[in-house]
Amino acid sequence: MAIKVHGALFSTCTARVLICLCEKGLDYELLAIDMPFGEIPAFKDGEVSLFESRVINRYLARKHKDIGTDLLLSNSLTQSALVETWMEVEAHKFDSPSSYGKAPDKQVIETEMEKLGKVLDVYEERLSKSKYLAGENYSLADLHHIPHLVYFKKTSKANAITSRPHVSAWWNDISSRPATVKISETMSLL
Amino acid sequence: MAIKVHGALFSTCTARVLICLCEKGLDYELLAIDMPFGEIPAFKDGEVSLFESRVINRYLARKHKDIGTDLLLSNSLTQSALVETWMEVEAHKFDSPSSYGKAPDKQVIETEMEKLGKVLDVYEERLSKSKYLAGENYSLADLHHIPHLVYFKKTSKANAITSRPHVSAWWNDISSRPATVKISETMSLL
Repeated sequence: MAIKVHGALFSTCTARVLICLCEKGLDYELLAIDMPFGEIPAFKDGEVSLFESRVINRYLARKHKDIGTDLLLSNSLTQSALVETWMEVEAHKFDSPSSYGKAPDKQVIETEMEKLGKVLDVYEERLSKSKYLAGENYSLADLHHIPHLVYFKKTSKANAITSRPHVSAWWNDISSRPATVKISETMSLL
Repeated sequence: MAIKVHGALFSTCTARVLICLCEKGLDYELLAIDMPFGEIPAFKDGEVSLFESRVINRYLARKHKDIGTDLLLSNSLTQSALVETWMEVEAHKFDSPSSYGKAPDKQVIETEMEKLGKVLDVYEERLSKSKYLAGENYSLADLHHIPHLVYFKKTSKANAITSRPHVSAWWNDISSRPATVKISETMSLL
């Protein structure tokens, strides 16, 4: 029985889950929606129903640990704690300001770009010390950034990425992974 | 070497970590602060440095899985996915409106109470079907709610809890756990 994802083609949260499914090479059906908080994506794998993209990806990464990349770096308590840390940073520091690149209000954009700049300064420092956010291996901590960054890179504020050499190199790396390319094209994000 | 927690006695995030440490019966030192995003609590366990209370608790629950309650219900993929789901609900739906019970602005309070009411309606439905949020066992999904609820219960809006029988029974249960009582008293939350 294929995994069912209830989502939308324009949704960055749906894209987040599809990139993870694609990293694991898993079959899925993309369907129309609904769930307790009226949010997408919603997810069904046999008896397991989930919502919230980051929860779904964590479940997929744990269940299919041995297929493809181990996206939670679960063999090391220290490394998995770093994955958790940077997933939390993405959800609580990066997610909101990175979605304002196309806001209609100039003042809102400026305020949010200032916040995003401060967050990206921390990323630049971190990525000067390791190839990926949680260390030398790609993980969900990196993957979770992709959908917003795909959109953000198309805005006039993209230099927030390109002006930071380590952030820029990181983005070139994670955006060229086959799973990223495939889903970005499917979802017309690129 | 004892676990070091850099935090503050008034901080609900610090309380969240201390309750988890206390559930596990672990020794710790509570110290003054700082970290990359200037946030508390920060945490050091030997070589592992972490920040963000929910990340710290996840690390503690994983590392000390076999001491006391298994707070991630990690023996079942389905149950652990439910823990993840309700931890996400707490962080993204409950956390913000539940902290407005003492806001100075009446309009802000009313808007946030309306949001909180809708969230608690989902909790009431959920808790009519299982004793705890992730099923029949206590987990981090429940624990993470405690510090805000301790404060919230002291406000004039506490009937948002007491008027919902299943939410109220759940709160009476989790607030009377020895770890909750001990830390609430230590931190003068009660």
